[in-house]
Amino acid sequence: MIQLHQFRLSPFSRKVRLVLAEKKLEVELIDEPYWEAAPEFLRRNPAGKVPVLRIDGLTLPDSGAICEYLEETVPEPALMPKEPAARAEVRRLVGWFDDKFHQEVTSKLVYERINKKLTRQGYPDGANVKSGVKAIRFHLDYMGWLLDRNRWLAGAEMSLADFAAAAHLSCLDYSSDVDWNRNQAVRDWYAKIKSRPAFRSILADVVPGFRPAGHYADLDF
Amino acid sequence: MIQLHQFRLSPFSRKVRLVLAEKKLEVELIDEPYWEAAPEFLRRNPAGKVPVLRIDGLTLPDSGAICEYLEETVPEPALMPKEPAARAEVRRLVGWFDDKFHQEVTSKLVYERINKKLTRQGYPDGANVKSGVKAIRFHLDYMGWLLDRNRWLAGAEMSLADFAAAAHLSCLDYSSDVDWNRNQAVRDWYAKIKSRPAFRSILADVVPGFRPAGHYADLDF
Repeated sequence: MIQLHQFRLSPFSRKVRLVLAEKKLEVELIDEPYWEAAPEFLRRNPAGKVPVLRIDGLTLPDSGAICEYLEETVPEPALMPKEPAARAEVRRLVGWFDDKFHQEVTSKLVYERINKKLTRQGYPDGANVKSGVKAIRFHLDYMGWLLDRNRWLAGAEMSLADFAAAAHLSCLDYSSDVDWNRNQAVRDWYAKIKSRPAFRSILADVVPGFRPAGHYADLDF
Repeated sequence: MIQLHQFRLSPFSRKVRLVLAEKKLEVELIDEPYWEAAPEFLRRNPAGKVPVLRIDGLTLPDSGAICEYLEETVPEPALMPKEPAARAEVRRLVGWFDDKFHQEVTSKLVYERINKKLTRQGYPDGANVKSGVKAIRFHLDYMGWLLDRNRWLAGAEMSLADFAAAAHLSCLDYSSDVDWNRNQAVRDWYAKIKSRPAFRSILADVVPGFRPAGHYADLDF
């Protein structure tokens, strides 16, 4: 059985769960309190981060490496185009969300509001929250700009880029940090991806002590 | 002609330069003061980061996406193994250096000492420098641990992981932040990679106003 050591509100864990589900790979989810840095967990991933995937007798850390591995070993359905330039665009956008968006938005809102409390690191930092609230507007506009040009974020076909973005947005939606009225194209895109069977397990996630936004699991939001 | 918009002490730019040189692709280097966020540059890469590669009529941002593109379009010499599990290990380590190492070490030392001054953001933050000095020891030990097991960081063959690591260490060596006496295996590995023809242009780099460490360009250091 495939096992995923994860945290429910980690966008990197969610991206891998979406990819596993799209590829119809059943997985056992193991909640990992990564902040406690248990020796057993650090042995699996010295970086001390989730997700870590156990598959094919391997222990794979790093969500980027995991997704490329799944794409190489379970090619159908394809979540990357075939052509190198189109693949570069998918990877650029995965990097955009997992690096820039994560740093400017997810870490400033979800981490401040939820992870910090959960890991007993104190109260949200107001300046961080303010900067995240400002940054998400720019990012939603940029996504809208991309979606005015393409059906999916990186082109005509759904790809890893959409799952990376949806993973972050779903965490932010949990903490009520997405203004779905800002951009209709982004809202339509999220409604489309949210209604996929792969999304079900994510919509069922609950982090004890933190209730999701009222519309979090609604397909019609 | 291939063009690379870069910053001389950007580890991400250096990684791409090493890959281009190993694959014997000639490139015109264009110094990009990315911190000035020129509209023309932001049009090429809305993330506002270097490097950006212009190749095959394309404009490619994101060093990770660029390296994968080069590996796919110019397969020889191969800088990634063929087998999916071995590829995952290369990508895990590229992520290790470009994410964890960058955040804990490069940004705390090179950026504090050089980039900050260059971009007129003030003086180095003593707490950051202290944390970088401490973190690099752990990272050199981890590299030593890997190199006790394998000839190169990710296995028996030289790979992208070695170039990612060498790109960061070369920037840190420029600012005299590497204690080469800490780990003999790491020193031997760096001597090997530093003596490759691909490294020459990096050893010739000078950032005006900042002299490199005395041994920076010595192959015998």
